[in-house]
Amino acid sequence: MIELRSDTFTLPTREMRRAMADAPLGDDVYGEDPTVRALEELAAETLGKEAACLMPSGTMANLASLLVHAPRGAKVLVGSESDIYVYEAGGASVCGGIVYEPIPTQPDGRLLLEDLAAGFPVDGDDPQFARPALICVENTHNRCGGAILPEEYIERLRRFADERRVALHLDGARVFNAAVASGVPVAQLVRHVDTLQFCLSKGLGAPVGSLAVGRADFVAEVRRVRKMLGGGMRQAGVLAAAGIVAVRNAGRLAEDHENAAALARGLAGIPGIEIDPGEVRTNICMFRVTDPRFTWQSFVASARELGLAVGELGHGRIRAVTHSGVTGHDIEAAVSIVAKVLSRGPEY
Amino acid sequence: MIELRSDTFTLPTREMRRAMADAPLGDDVYGEDPTVRALEELAAETLGKEAACLMPSGTMANLASLLVHAPRGAKVLVGSESDIYVYEAGGASVCGGIVYEPIPTQPDGRLLLEDLAAGFPVDGDDPQFARPALICVENTHNRCGGAILPEEYIERLRRFADERRVALHLDGARVFNAAVASGVPVAQLVRHVDTLQFCLSKGLGAPVGSLAVGRADFVAEVRRVRKMLGGGMRQAGVLAAAGIVAVRNAGRLAEDHENAAALARGLAGIPGIEIDPGEVRTNICMFRVTDPRFTWQSFVASARELGLAVGELGHGRIRAVTHSGVTGHDIEAAVSIVAKVLSRGPEY
Amino acid sequence: MIELRSDTFTLPTREMRRAMADAPLGDDVYGEDPTVRALEELAAETLGKEAACLMPSGTMANLASLLVHAPRGAKVLVGSESDIYVYEAGGASVCGGIVYEPIPTQPDGRLLLEDLAAGFPVDGDDPQFARPALICVENTHNRCGGAILPEEYIERLRRFADERRVALHLDGARVFNAAVASGVPVAQLVRHVDTLQFCLSKGLGAPVGSLAVGRADFVAEVRRVRKMLGGGMRQAGVLAAAGIVAVRNAGRLAEDHENAAALARGLAGIPGIEIDPGEVRTNICMFRVTDPRFTWQSFVASARELGLAVGELGHGRIRAVTHSGVTGHDIEAAVSIVAKVLSRGPEY
Amino acid sequence: MIELRSDTFTLPTREMRRAMADAPLGDDVYGEDPTVRALEELAAETLGKEAACLMPSGTMANLASLLVHAPRGAKVLVGSESDIYVYEAGGASVCGGIVYEPIPTQPDGRLLLEDLAAGFPVDGDDPQFARPALICVENTHNRCGGAILPEEYIERLRRFADERRVALHLDGARVFNAAVASGVPVAQLVRHVDTLQFCLSKGLGAPVGSLAVGRADFVAEVRRVRKMLGGGMRQAGVLAAAGIVAVRNAGRLAEDHENAAALARGLAGIPGIEIDPGEVRTNICMFRVTDPRFTWQSFVASARELGLAVGELGHGRIRAVTHSGVTGHDIEAAVSIVAKVLSRGPEY
Repeated sequence: MIELRSDTFTLPTREMRRAMADAPLGDDVYGEDPTVRALEELAAETLGKEAACLMPSGTMANLASLLVHAPRGAKVLVGSESDIYVYEAGGASVCGGIVYEPIPTQPDGRLLLEDLAAGFPVDGDDPQFARPALICVENTHNRCGGAILPEEYIERLRRFADERRVALHLDGARVFNAAVASGVPVAQLVRHVDTLQFCLSKGLGAPVGSLAVGRADFVAEVRRVRKMLGGGMRQAGVLAAAGIVAVRNAGRLAEDHENAAALARGLAGIPGIEIDPGEVRTNICMFRVTDPRFTWQSFVASARELGLAVGELGHGRIRAVTHSGVTGHDIEAAVSIVAKVLSRGPEY
Repeated sequence: MIELRSDTFTLPTREMRRAMADAPLGDDVYGEDPTVRALEELAAETLGKEAACLMPSGTMANLASLLVHAPRGAKVLVGSESDIYVYEAGGASVCGGIVYEPIPTQPDGRLLLEDLAAGFPVDGDDPQFARPALICVENTHNRCGGAILPEEYIERLRRFADERRVALHLDGARVFNAAVASGVPVAQLVRHVDTLQFCLSKGLGAPVGSLAVGRADFVAEVRRVRKMLGGGMRQAGVLAAAGIVAVRNAGRLAEDHENAAALARGLAGIPGIEIDPGEVRTNICMFRVTDPRFTWQSFVASARELGLAVGELGHGRIRAVTHSGVTGHDIEAAVSIVAKVLSRGPEY
Repeated sequence: MIELRSDTFTLPTREMRRAMADAPLGDDVYGEDPTVRALEELAAETLGKEAACLMPSGTMANLASLLVHAPRGAKVLVGSESDIYVYEAGGASVCGGIVYEPIPTQPDGRLLLEDLAAGFPVDGDDPQFARPALICVENTHNRCGGAILPEEYIERLRRFADERRVALHLDGARVFNAAVASGVPVAQLVRHVDTLQFCLSKGLGAPVGSLAVGRADFVAEVRRVRKMLGGGMRQAGVLAAAGIVAVRNAGRLAEDHENAAALARGLAGIPGIEIDPGEVRTNICMFRVTDPRFTWQSFVASARELGLAVGELGHGRIRAVTHSGVTGHDIEAAVSIVAKVLSRGPEY
Repeated sequence: MIELRSDTFTLPTREMRRAMADAPLGDDVYGEDPTVRALEELAAETLGKEAACLMPSGTMANLASLLVHAPRGAKVLVGSESDIYVYEAGGASVCGGIVYEPIPTQPDGRLLLEDLAAGFPVDGDDPQFARPALICVENTHNRCGGAILPEEYIERLRRFADERRVALHLDGARVFNAAVASGVPVAQLVRHVDTLQFCLSKGLGAPVGSLAVGRADFVAEVRRVRKMLGGGMRQAGVLAAAGIVAVRNAGRLAEDHENAAALARGLAGIPGIEIDPGEVRTNICMFRVTDPRFTWQSFVASARELGLAVGELGHGRIRAVTHSGVTGHDIEAAVSIVAKVLSRGPEY
């Protein structure tokens, strides 16, 4: 099976397995796991922020960040197509008494400043309105096909956030993909956000974990919230060991991007598939099956039967994600499978 | 001052004042206020439901209804322009751990079934998504200029809700306006919703209060939530007495609708004012000042200076609301004031 | 029926009814009800604080106060026998994500400083523990038989709270009873607390309402929370008018205290009733039926049959509360009824 | 350093490290990690329940269990000395709108049925009171020195819970210690509870993880809540692999119990130390330093200086916990260190 459903399917490399087996460990709930500390320091340094905290997932890293930034009763402005709004089960409302205000996500992943401005009440003291506390953006943007938010845009957002006195959080689950693809050091790409999270377990290939990153006082509060949510893990160094390897090898994401570009070019040549290869800039290919014999469900099922795993990712689009478990040869095979599926029609 | 900012500015009539002064009272927290009971029975009967519960406000009536319908972690589908979503401070997220999902409100106040359908996850068991529990609509629709949701639409919504196994709640703050304007008994207009709230203190003219209305078991739970929120009031019969008068005199809303229509016709003749009198069906006139010398702020300020109070109600539109404190003569004067403001330009 | 179940059963006096009928009104949600403003100013001045906000109930006044004082995830130290902990449905946990920590209430209504101290974690930075934000006390103390917290005790609490950097809130539902009974101006009695609420609808005799009182910035936030909870009421001046009369006539509580003392003395002479008249200092008599033929349920039912309404208030104790609707003659009659009940035994 | 602060300090064995390195993995968020599935099946089978779900911590396993059992606004009856109440940051109030009602914990870890009964309102429909939904107990009981709740007691609790129509949850962080020490199969010991959690990372010695265990529908809901809290982990099989080894080797806890007994006997012979060896039944020794020259702080610091790490665990008591990283020789050394500390007095 060629696994393109997600880059979360990456399996740890031999190097990661070895690091996990050899890692010096301690009880991280007491703050005494040296490998966790090493990863947190590496993450903070790599992202150019003061501190970082290992979390069991990106969902918790985002959730804890929102809870720290936004008091009960505040609202957070999030993209209508962002993972935080779409896929994280409304955790900030449940656990934090926070209101989500979805702002229309542009096809390139941006939120327009004018749309954000409309989320601020004319009269901030009017008790009818929840007070905005935070703006969240996503880079790369999953449901926008791995689109990259450019540094200049984030800088404009920064100024906007400063004028409005709200914080700026980045869901950087795949921020290393953005940095590698745009050839900008990741620390530079995130210097205008207050806080971010990134995932070890997507393209970076580690088995488990995400890091919440920001100022030391922010991270201290995230650590409190992590305990309350149940994200404190004992000898978490076994996970952190793989994470250190993952962060150090982030450069390898370039291969995934090349593979995704090749996949996009291949798919573009298949009748009944709609894709613009020019929009594939990182490791995500989004395409539509325009052949009227197919629904997305029947396409996904037919491809699976022939050995290609892909999924739907909103609005009937198919997502294919490249990662360390996918080779150039797999890409060629994937293109062939899609061509074959389209040529013979759905089975069901 | 001609007060058109809202129909919440109505003052109690002499009849209401007398009823309040003479009302038999008891401790309603013990369920022993006879006037409250009489109002609750009158409301349930008038709306054609099993039971009703007096609340201090429409905000609490909506909030308690949402908390009863939707468990922690569920989502409620609300109109993007609905009062529940826009003006109620996100209470269901704060007090209930409920996620609001705003669905685009059509200009006539409706939510499209296809938009609602998109709010239901493809896989209802996927834990990434909050589960929908409730659909809320608003009739008449405040930010849509007092638009009326027709009975047939609500019936279609009912079938949709049944198929999807969610409940249907009506924010009927001004549902008596809808009933009077469409010549349909209010009980008939609401028979397809599970629950509703209506306000005594808007066009009906009572000083304080709203009623949450529905099945007896729903109302029993609303009563529990009311206590928790602090909405239990002791000798609330003083308020209920005016409420009884208000409900019995709901027919008088026809006058407000005539006045609003007259106002709309008058405004339509003034250069620099944009309004379609055909859209004014109840007691709300929404218009825009298109004269480029004005912002909505300067228009509102200039009108106020000349004795006319109106307000902004989203997207820069001006709202003028008729009610029992406004006469036909006031309407003529209001039109003259607007004409004068437009002819002489802003002061500021 | 002699109604001694609670002082919440008081009916408005003729003077209150007249004030309600004549009150100048406005829309308090817009901050324009002159009678509400007058009451809020009177309350602030009388209590010696900067500002006050009218609420529909003491429950909401306490709830909003807790939400303003304590951020999500904090804990509030409350008496194990306090009304806030026992009778208010856990609202601060539900609506505020706040943890209640019950501290043993002493028989005289006090919380011991050493017990409060134990509620503070040894290491305030340890994320295992919710952070204390607030101490709440109650004066007079309902479930301690109307006990009065003396000024000196509150002053000690103040110093303790300052050392620990937490706020101090008073549930002063019956704080005017405490002031009148101890002959201390109410402003003096509450000067050491940051914030308080008091009820218009208990001994003071108004039909509905409580006031949250404190610094101006605190009250501004309470007002925000009030809107979110649904406690904003339109022409609330009808209620406030009675409240003004109630506050001005607080001195009459002395009668209730005399009546309660007389009741206690009368009950003390009845075999099978256990009460210490020396402990009855305000308007609440707590006693036990020690006659083994009775349960509290059968005693309450038997008394009711003979025209005396009382209730149970925890741990099987009977509570009788005097108020403006109870005369000296009623007290004599009540004593006779209890004597008769005890002499003839339970009916059931 | 002899590490007796907690059994959470256990390091994975060579066998666990090997299992982690060799484990077949998949994406557990998609339900496709075979090692996680194997652990969950092993756990369910071992505990005699239908299903189990791997969580990052015992805190999250308890939190998710409470959220599934208790709706918003309900209360859970927990021991006043239970870890759930004392050490888990009030998560159920924050994330669930649930009220904790602490019930006095007896020295042997039990909650008295009469105390539990007092937590149920006389009138369950009275909206003043949060409704009880759940009783939680702890076995072995941490703050009661590893006390074991006997099967007969849990059976009585079961009947009580059934009569009151509430559920029964066990915080079984150390339930394998209870089973091993009492010679009862763990499935038998927990058969009377609806649900439980147990920790892989305490005496069982795995690095990270706990399991929530119960009926299949309960576990399905726990899985939903886990996603919302951010506890879904991708290739969690690396952790589960160690967990499988841990569960299979639970029998080795007998050694820890022998070591704890030896430690208790040794400490009992040291003047200035108060401990009853008869109360040490599992792997926890609780003792007091009665020598008046010491505070607990100075005792802990002095012991640490000589190579023995212990901690305080409430009310000034010292806790020493045995585990797989502690040998019989370490115990002898620990006793010598304590004797030396007591003989020479505090350094500070």
